[in-house]
Parts: sequence; structure tokens; C-alpha cells
Amino acid sequence: MNATTRSRLAAVSTATVSTVLLKHGFRNLFLQGVRPLNPAAPRMVGPAYTLRTIPAREDLDRMEAFRDPAHPQRRGVEECPPGAVFVIDSRGDARAASAGGILVTRLHRRGVAGIVTDGGFRDSPEIAAMPFPAYHLRPSAPANLIHHHCVELEVPIACGGVPIFPGDIMVGDAEGVVVVPAGIAAAVADEAFEQTVFEDFVQARVDAGHTIRGLYPMTDPANGPLFEAWRREQGR
Amino acid sequence: MNATTRSRLAAVSTATVSTVLLKHGFRNLFLQGVRPLNPAAPRMVGPAYTLRTIPAREDLDRMEAFRDPAHPQRRGVEECPPGAVFVIDSRGDARAASAGGILVTRLHRRGVAGIVTDGGFRDSPEIAAMPFPAYHLRPSAPANLIHHHCVELEVPIACGGVPIFPGDIMVGDAEGVVVVPAGIAAAVADEAFEQTVFEDFVQARVDAGHTIRGLYPMTDPANGPLFEAWRREQGR
Amino acid sequence: MNATTRSRLAAVSTATVSTVLLKHGFRNLFLQGVRPLNPAAPRMVGPAYTLRTIPAREDLDRMEAFRDPAHPQRRGVEECPPGAVFVIDSRGDARAASAGGILVTRLHRRGVAGIVTDGGFRDSPEIAAMPFPAYHLRPSAPANLIHHHCVELEVPIACGGVPIFPGDIMVGDAEGVVVVPAGIAAAVADEAFEQTVFEDFVQARVDAGHTIRGLYPMTDPANGPLFEAWRREQGR
Amino acid sequence: MNATTRSRLAAVSTATVSTVLLKHGFRNLFLQGVRPLNPAAPRMVGPAYTLRTIPAREDLDRMEAFRDPAHPQRRGVEECPPGAVFVIDSRGDARAASAGGILVTRLHRRGVAGIVTDGGFRDSPEIAAMPFPAYHLRPSAPANLIHHHCVELEVPIACGGVPIFPGDIMVGDAEGVVVVPAGIAAAVADEAFEQTVFEDFVQARVDAGHTIRGLYPMTDPANGPLFEAWRREQGR
Amino acid sequence: MNATTRSRLAAVSTATVSTVLLKHGFRNLFLQGVRPLNPAAPRMVGPAYTLRTIPAREDLDRMEAFRDPAHPQRRGVEECPPGAVFVIDSRGDARAASAGGILVTRLHRRGVAGIVTDGGFRDSPEIAAMPFPAYHLRPSAPANLIHHHCVELEVPIACGGVPIFPGDIMVGDAEGVVVVPAGIAAAVADEAFEQTVFEDFVQARVDAGHTIRGLYPMTDPANGPLFEAWRREQGR
Amino acid sequence: MNATTRSRLAAVSTATVSTVLLKHGFRNLFLQGVRPLNPAAPRMVGPAYTLRTIPAREDLDRMEAFRDPAHPQRRGVEECPPGAVFVIDSRGDARAASAGGILVTRLHRRGVAGIVTDGGFRDSPEIAAMPFPAYHLRPSAPANLIHHHCVELEVPIACGGVPIFPGDIMVGDAEGVVVVPAGIAAAVADEAFEQTVFEDFVQARVDAGHTIRGLYPMTDPANGPLFEAWRREQGR
Repeated sequence: MNATTRSRLAAVSTATVSTVLLKHGFRNLFLQGVRPLNPAAPRMVGPAYTLRTIPAREDLDRMEAFRDPAHPQRRGVEECPPGAVFVIDSRGDARAASAGGILVTRLHRRGVAGIVTDGGFRDSPEIAAMPFPAYHLRPSAPANLIHHHCVELEVPIACGGVPIFPGDIMVGDAEGVVVVPAGIAAAVADEAFEQTVFEDFVQARVDAGHTIRGLYPMTDPANGPLFEAWRREQGR
Repeated sequence: MNATTRSRLAAVSTATVSTVLLKHGFRNLFLQGVRPLNPAAPRMVGPAYTLRTIPAREDLDRMEAFRDPAHPQRRGVEECPPGAVFVIDSRGDARAASAGGILVTRLHRRGVAGIVTDGGFRDSPEIAAMPFPAYHLRPSAPANLIHHHCVELEVPIACGGVPIFPGDIMVGDAEGVVVVPAGIAAAVADEAFEQTVFEDFVQARVDAGHTIRGLYPMTDPANGPLFEAWRREQGR
Repeated sequence: MNATTRSRLAAVSTATVSTVLLKHGFRNLFLQGVRPLNPAAPRMVGPAYTLRTIPAREDLDRMEAFRDPAHPQRRGVEECPPGAVFVIDSRGDARAASAGGILVTRLHRRGVAGIVTDGGFRDSPEIAAMPFPAYHLRPSAPANLIHHHCVELEVPIACGGVPIFPGDIMVGDAEGVVVVPAGIAAAVADEAFEQTVFEDFVQARVDAGHTIRGLYPMTDPANGPLFEAWRREQGR
Repeated sequence: MNATTRSRLAAVSTATVSTVLLKHGFRNLFLQGVRPLNPAAPRMVGPAYTLRTIPAREDLDRMEAFRDPAHPQRRGVEECPPGAVFVIDSRGDARAASAGGILVTRLHRRGVAGIVTDGGFRDSPEIAAMPFPAYHLRPSAPANLIHHHCVELEVPIACGGVPIFPGDIMVGDAEGVVVVPAGIAAAVADEAFEQTVFEDFVQARVDAGHTIRGLYPMTDPANGPLFEAWRREQGR
Repeated sequence: MNATTRSRLAAVSTATVSTVLLKHGFRNLFLQGVRPLNPAAPRMVGPAYTLRTIPAREDLDRMEAFRDPAHPQRRGVEECPPGAVFVIDSRGDARAASAGGILVTRLHRRGVAGIVTDGGFRDSPEIAAMPFPAYHLRPSAPANLIHHHCVELEVPIACGGVPIFPGDIMVGDAEGVVVVPAGIAAAVADEAFEQTVFEDFVQARVDAGHTIRGLYPMTDPANGPLFEAWRREQGR
Repeated sequence: MNATTRSRLAAVSTATVSTVLLKHGFRNLFLQGVRPLNPAAPRMVGPAYTLRTIPAREDLDRMEAFRDPAHPQRRGVEECPPGAVFVIDSRGDARAASAGGILVTRLHRRGVAGIVTDGGFRDSPEIAAMPFPAYHLRPSAPANLIHHHCVELEVPIACGGVPIFPGDIMVGDAEGVVVVPAGIAAAVADEAFEQTVFEDFVQARVDAGHTIRGLYPMTDPANGPLFEAWRREQGR
């Protein structure tokens, strides 16, 4: 992902990205039920770095497991590349935490771009106070190992009912998270950027009291020149 | 709905309206799971203007569908009467949006009293910032047509597990939304207004440290004169 | 529960308490799905005072039922000891309210330490504005008796999928609620207090940019003296 | 419950009983989701003998718990009166068994009239082969104590979303289970018996090719004499 | 639908029809969770005749409602054309019945081709014994009007999470029900018929111990002549 | 797994295995909600051979995908060792099939011991007629690729809410499926075999009218010699 793609994806909404993805034939790339802990956190853009879990097993998932430096969760927190998004497949299970405040702080300090789970975070009030994009289903105080066994890093996963491959681009705003397949990220960024210019024009017209008829979608050709004029005015 | 009914319903809570409806024999008129995007938005009161959907079908629900000026969602946004509430039967499915920021802005500009869905809205952060009552299950960025096929306007619908007939009075506060059958709206407004006076008295007594015994409900006749005195004092 | 136990439990998070409980062999004592109405309310600590419900029955659950001074909900609101937490088994059903603003105010005025239900509260906006810890699933305006029949006080109950015995210690913060079996409350308070000191040290180290490797858990013996030094510095 | 009431309830369907209960104002007395293991088992009629559970706790719910002769489940199996129905409130949780083949056999041998849970049974294939009415949500092999803590016998409970008081009459057929409040059991039995005669007449007419118009409900007075004639013929 | 289309659809499985529909771009036309009461009933094929419901309202949905000859459910049972399939949108709610044994018998006697609901049937044991295709979620004894208000006939509906338009072709077997858009019914019938011939060949080969490699899908050209030979042999 | 272990596991119930696993500290190894298509099929015992899926993506999951001989589902069907159990992680999603009749037939012909998914099978009536143990949530006609993307074979997976590692022993009967960690399979088989002898004795006693008091569990020492005598008699 080059800098233009990143900055464009950081300037468009997950709603607009979802519409562009639909035009590319993708109907299921918005993570269902996953919401921001801190809606005022910065926008999130970055390639997915994935962690896969299965249900816990009592003989394997004991406190001592975390003493192993190869434990995938702990290893991932130290190895997730700066600029990437740490994405955890928690199988939609928020009965125990996917991670907590210390690990999220570490990711933040390491320059990671955000964290996403379809489970829950513990220490959620502290995480919600951080200027760091974090997304989950709901708060969950119990320790990870009660319900989650961490299997491996950097494999394709499910999260929020959506397929995520390592390197796919995760985009998050105050609405939620959408994943953009790596191969079309630049195209989607460009189209979403354009679509945003158009929707800002539409929003401005509607704010000013105009009808959506013929405007959204733009079926009335009279709106074309108005759009072009507005765009020049705005310098976009 | 006359002005008194409207102003009275705007001055009472959905909890009190629900209690009055129960006294009229209605046990299921509070929309389950539907919550305000902006709890600080004005109170919502207005007759229901309904939109019915069924699951989408790939051959019918294509981007081009919105170019048709007769598309029920787009037509409804322009035709919903000022003062009415736009209510969408989304079959409890928030996987795709019921509407987004532009359409909601248009409704707001047109003087519509609010919007309600048992699905989700896209552009939810923008909608949450508007001084306009909007209610849904949860944010949902994907475009409407991925899961919803809009069928028709102004027919009886289900929303939040509740029956809603066009013209029924929708009442919303920061707690949620309750529907009042059109034929009893005036009576419910009056009774809820009276009930609110009484509950404000009770609340004042309890705030002052009094027991609820004999007060709530008022089984101790000694509380009658206290209530009357308080009411005169308050000029209500 | 002595004053030290209470003050220590008020100074630790539900996440830390959950971890300590896990070390004692308890995997299921965090109430699932139950969240604070007012995340800025004071921390909640107190012994459970329980109310048990079953589904309502039309002949028993009529408005008049509340006129009976022995009605368990109303009686409980007046008899719950100051400092205790009023906990309602609503069977995970938030379709009708477990309680409302007046009763919650009364509990607050009587010095009760908090209220918890695995149903919903009505008058939730008012309750959310009170400096009183209250926890539920979601707002629910309909009157209690539509779906709940109050059976009895002070028996073991289920709440949020968790077993709660009268006298167990309820601990709540902005994340949620965890229950501590009465017999181990003091031990859990002490261990959680210690664990919090350690986690605050870890958090400080991670905030300062250090790796979690060898630190969390502390497998690198070099961290021991650092911790002791930090602890002395902090006077903890 | 006298012998006539019992025999009449054994001769009518749960659907007909449900309709009669609705006429008495009861809308929620059919146990939701609870189904027979052996649809060919005899009909079930008998007063409810109840067992209440809450979620298990690791320190209380150990294998040794069953060695205590006062354990409510084991005690109930020996003390449930012949002719009664053993009803277990499993909180809708079928992740662990409510009971298994040995206990069900013991109840059967002791002359108990049936067993009902809103959880699951283990040894379900063996139970399904017994000429004994047993009802649950789905098979569940794990031992009871993994998720259920048995609290007490003979108190009001919830089962299948329905209120059940000890002594209420449980009626089961191949469709499911309905509970009849004890005080109206005789009246309901009589009305259901009459309603069944009428519905058998309607069924016979419809089998013979007649329209339901004017017949079901019987709004065409011409059907009255036909019904009377049929009834005499049938000797009912 | 002509006789060939009908007979071909009666000779193919819902699985094969689903695959052919996918090739036409339809991904969501199999009714989710809807199952046959009598798996041994005849196959079901016929155009949809629809009934739409919303949640019940206490003032409208009283026993007397059925005395009105215009009640949509009762009218539909008498007016559904022979050969059509009666399809009820019950909003996925099986807490009360969508219909019962008498109405289903009447439909059967009138030559209707089957009945489908995404709710439940009462008198389900009797319906399960009829040689008539009926599909639902699960048995449900309570009377229809407790939860369902019948609104209208012959409009587009949702059923089992699928869009159904009047006249669409309903196809049911022991696996479940799939709906074929009216306009492509003949094409789907033909393609499914062809696909069935091929899959029967594959099944025969696999039954005989052959690998699926190169056979399913047929990527090995050597299998082409084998298929042609088998087909001639079978006279298909 | 040696022949004794296999034959012992084939002679005990999943309920008994679950109890033995609990004694070993395992509380969550019975697959929730997964049921046999053919309850009369042979018992299932064999090591797990796993297939992992994530949600489908429209660009990857096209009909042509199956033409690739490396497609994990198709490859797995040909490579799953005879005697093993093919286990599919379908993420609890039965909206599209996990496999169908042809693939299941192929597995059966290849000597595989059974198939398990926490999704659904298509061609379920045909599979239900085979003398082959197959387990799923419910029938599902839509093609696999609509909702499932097959990722890889022979990795740890989740199925029915349970952790399954390749080589773990899957045991299935008419009640459902339980997984036994590979390392304790022999011990569990032996203990379950012993436990079964004891439970058969208890069942015989209870069948003969004896109380469970002192017998189950055996707290009355008088039962010891009775058990020993019975066991000798039975030659077990």
C-alpha cells in the first residue's frame, strides 16, 4: 500500500468503501457487530496482521502458557509490523477477552495502526481513553485463556463474519471496520476518494435544501455542471 | 393528531406511554432493541409513514434500481409528510444499511419528525451528530440493496417486533421508541400527561428521602393531599 | 466484608478480579452482556441482595399487584441493606423493565451500593444521569409485569449467566460486573490489590516503550528489582 | 386433579388446551422449543414437581456433590410423587445435561408421569426408546454439573419461557408441553374436551370436502344441527 | 409453469436447483431453517400464493377476528388456487402457530400443492401424518392471533430469509424449500434436469468406487465418453 | 489408536466419554448442536482429519474453484485416511452446505469412519439413508462456495464450539459427537469401558425397581458385592 492509497483510505468513510467494494462485486466485507471503543480515535488504515484462535482446552490454556515466548498472542504483539492492523479471529465469542490494556498499549507504542477482534477487550475503559483505534463486540473482563486458544499468526481468518487474508487493508472509522482485498486497495482508494467528492457535493446540495431526485443518483444531467463548478470551487 | 396531543406526547417519556398503553391492554408496542443515534436529539412525535422491505434479490437489487424515481425508498424520502416519522421495516436485519446520511439529511430538511428502522444506518457518526431523532439497531456501512429490497410505502409493517400501521403515532426519547395506535393517541397523551405529573411528585418525594411504601402506588390516603398541594405549588 | 476488603475491591478493576478468580479456579463469574448505564458513576462494591423472577402470568401480574406491600420487588427496594447491591435475575429478558427511575432513586437514597439486572431498566436516561452504579443489558420502557413475575428475595439466582448467592460480593466498574464468592472475598481483594500494583508497574514500563517480553508475565528475573524499586518509589 | 380432569386432559391436544387457555386470558403457557424425545410415548398429564437450577460454580459442583443424599436433583428423583411430572428449570441451557437415562428410568419405575426440561438430556437415544414422556430442547451428553447447580425443589420456576408453579398441571403430546394453572385445570379440561368434540366434527367435515367458511368458526347457523346430529351419531 | 417445467422440478432436488440458481447469480433462495413435517410426503412444486403477517395487536387480534369472512388467513385457505403453494411470512416467529390441522386439511382437499411458513404449525403430529408437503420451523401449539396479525394476500413477502413474489415457483423435498423466480422457472427446470442426469452418473461412478478427481467437476476428458455411454444405457 | 482403544470407544456412549473427560478436567469437548443424520448408522470412532474454512469471497469462491485439484475440500475427500473422521470447521454457519451426497459417498467408499461439520449437508435425505455416520446442524441445500471458503487441511480447528486437533479421537453415537484428546484416548477408552460396566449394572438395578440412593453414586457399601456378583454373572 503506497502513501496515496493510505491517505485516501484515511479520508473516506467505511460506508463509501463498502459501496465501492459492492461495485467490484464484494457484498460481505464490512465486519458485522464490531464497533469502536473510542469513536474519537484516529481513523484506522493498515494491512491486516492476523491471529487465529480456537476454543480453549483446559490442559493447554493455563496461566503458564503465557510464559512461553512463542505464545502466538504475545509474539504477535511484539512482531506485528508498525503501520499494520492486528486482527484477531475470536469466533464471535466475547465471553472472555481477546486482549487487554497492556497489550493494546504495547501495540500502540510499537506504531501499530489499530486492533480489531470479533470478541471483546478487557480494560475496555482504559482502551477507550487511548488515541488508538480499537474495535470489538463488547467489553469482556475474563482472561483470554478461559475461552480462547491462540493457534497461529498470519493465516487467513474470519472476523465479524468476513474473510480476512494477511495483507488485506483494514479500514476503520467511527462506524466500524471494512476490509479491502489487497489486490484492489489502490483502485478502491481512488474510487472511494472520487465517490466521496461526489457525495460531499450531494450532501452540500441536500444541506442547502435541494431534492435528492435527479441528484442521488445523478440522473438529471443539469446536476453535472453544478457538480463540476462546486468541485472547482472546493479545489478537489 | 392535534397540537395538544403532540405537545403532551413530546413532554412524557416512552416509559410512561408504555404504562398507559398497558392500562389500555397493549403489551407489545415498545420497539425492542431500537436505540437513538443521538440521545441528545429532540424528542420525536409524529404519525408513522411506513416503508416495507423484503430480502434483496440479485436481479432486482442492483445499483441502477436507485435511478428509478419510483424506487420506494427514494420516493418515500421525498414524499414523507413534514411532521411524520419515516419508519422502515428492515426485518431486524442490520447487515446492510436501511438508509444513510444524505437521505436522513433530506428528511430532516423536509421537516420530517424522525426516522426509525429495525436495521442499521450507514454514516451513523454523521447522523448521530444531527439534531434529528434517528433510531436503529446498530451502525451498518453496507449499501441497502445488499440485503434489502424495498417493496412499498404506507402499508402496515413490523418494526422492532411491534405492529405499526400508517398514521399510528411514533413517540421517541433517549430510551427508545413506542408506537401509539392512532385511535387512542389523544387519550394516551392525556393520561400520560397526568401520569407524568404524578410520577414527578413521586420522584420529588423519593428524592427527598421518603419511602415508596404507600406512595408508589399511592395506597396511603395521606399522600393524596400532599400530591394535591404539590401540584398546586408546581402549577401543573 | 470488612472495610479493607471493600476499599481494596473498590480500587481494582473487574478484569483484575476476574484473573484472580481464575487462579482460584473460577471461570464464569463475570456477568455477560451486562453494562453500566453511567460509566462515570462511582465504583460498585457490596454484598448481593437478590430478587428472583420468572415469566409473568396474566392473572397474577396485574397493576394491582404493586399495591401489595409484600410484592417482592417493592419490598426489596425498601429492605435491601445500605451498602448492599440489589441484583435481579431477569432471565436475560430485557423486553420489559426490571425496574425504573423511581425505584432506583429510592435505592440510591437508602444508601444501597448499586443495582444490577440481566434485563433492562426503564427511565434509563434518568438513571444514566445519576451518580449511582446501575447495570443492565439495554433500555426497556415496558412495565415490569408484562414479562416478569417477582417470586422472592434473598435466594441464589442466575444473572448474566453467572451464579449469585446472597452475600456474594458484587464488584462493578465501567467495564461491567464480577461476583466474588463471599468466602474468598478478602483473599481475592488482597491478591487483586497486589496484582494491580504489578500491572500498574507493567503498564508504566510499556507506556515508557518497553517490550512485554520477559515482563508480562515476568519471566526475565532482571525485571524483579525494577519492580521493587518502582514500588518503593510509588510508596505502594 | 380428579380422575375426570386427568382423563380429559389426556384426550385433548396441547393445541386445543392452548386455545382454551387463551380464552381464559393466558397467552404464554406453551413451552417454547421443548420437544418430545419419543413422539410415540403415552400422553403426559400430571401436576408439576419442580427443580430449580442456576449456573454451576466450580467449588460447589464437583462429582462428589452427588454423594450427598440431599442433592436436590437426586432427592427429587426419589421424592417426586407418582403421577406428577418432574419439571426442571435449566434456564434454556442445553450445553450440559439436565438428567440422563438412569434417573429417567428411576422416575418411570416410580410411576412418575413424565419429565420436562428446557435444557437437554444425556442418554437421549435410550430415553427416546422408553414408553415414557420426556421433553427437552436437544440431546446433551455433558454431565449436569458442568453448567447446572441444582438449588431447590418445589418452588415456582421458568421453563421454556413459561411460568410454572408446583402443582400446575403439565400436559404433553407429540407437539409439546403446555402448563395449566392448577386453579382452572378442571374448567380447562372440560372446555378443551368440548372444543375437541367440535374440532373433530369440523375435521370430519373438512375431510369430506366441505369449506371452512361458516364452519370454522361456526358462523353459519346451518352447521349447528349438523354438528348436533354428528355428535349423537358419534355418541360424544 | 407448464407441465414439463412442473414435472422436471418435481424430479430434481432442492440442492440441484440451488446450484442452478447460483449459476444464474442467485445466492439466497433456499429457505433457511424451514423443514418438512413429513419427509415422506410427495415432492412440492407450485407457484407461491402468499400471506403476509405483522406482529399481533390485542385490539385487532381477538377470537372474533376469525368470524370475519375477509380475514386474510381464512380467505386465503379458500382462495389459494389448486396447484399453488400457500406461503406464509411469519417473520421467523414460531411462538404462535401460523396455521393448524384443519386449515392444512382444507388446503390439501382443495388441491393446493403444499404449505410453507417460517413460523410453526399447531396440530403438527396430525399434519406430519398427512401425504401433503408442509414446511415450518418447529411445532407451535398457541393460536395464531397471539403473535400474528394477518395483513394481506398475494404481495411480495419474506420467508426463511428469502424474497418470495407471488407466482414464484416453490420447490420442496425432504431437505427443504427453494424458490425459483417465475421468469426463469423453465430454464432452471431444464438445467436442473440435465444437472441431475450428470450427478446421477457421478453418483453411480462414486458408488462403484471411482475417484471424484477429474469426475466432479469433470475436468478429465476421459469421463466424457463414459458419461455419454452411461446416459444412453440409462435412456436419459 | 490401537484396536482395543477403538473397540472400547465404539462400545461406550458419548455421555459416558464426556463424564470420563470431566474427571480428566475437560469440560467442553462435546460438540454443541451437532446431530446425526442417520441415528441408526454405525457408531463412529476415528482420528480427526480436519478442514478449515473462513467466509467465502466472491472473487475466490466461484464454480471454477472446484476444478483445481488442490482445492482443500476436494483434496481432503480423496486424502482423508481410511479409518479417520473428516471434520469441517464451518464456523457454525449452516446457510450453505459443508458437503453433499457425492462427497460423502466417496468418503464412505474410501473407508473413512465418518464426517462431522458444524454447518449443514446438502443431499441430506440421501446421506441420512447411508449406513455412514454423518453429523451436522441442519440440512442446507445451497452450494458450499456461497458462504464457505476452504483454507487448509490438517490444522487445529473449532467445531461445535470445541477445540479439535488433527489426530484427536472423534467418537459419535446417536446422541452426538465428543472429541478425545489424542494423548489420553487409551486411558479414556479404558475408564469409559469400566464406567459403562458399572452404569449397566446401575441401569439393571434401576430397571428392576431399586432406588438410586446409595447406588448412583455408590455410597452404600452393600452395593459393592452386588456389583461384583452381577459382573461375574455377565462375564464382563
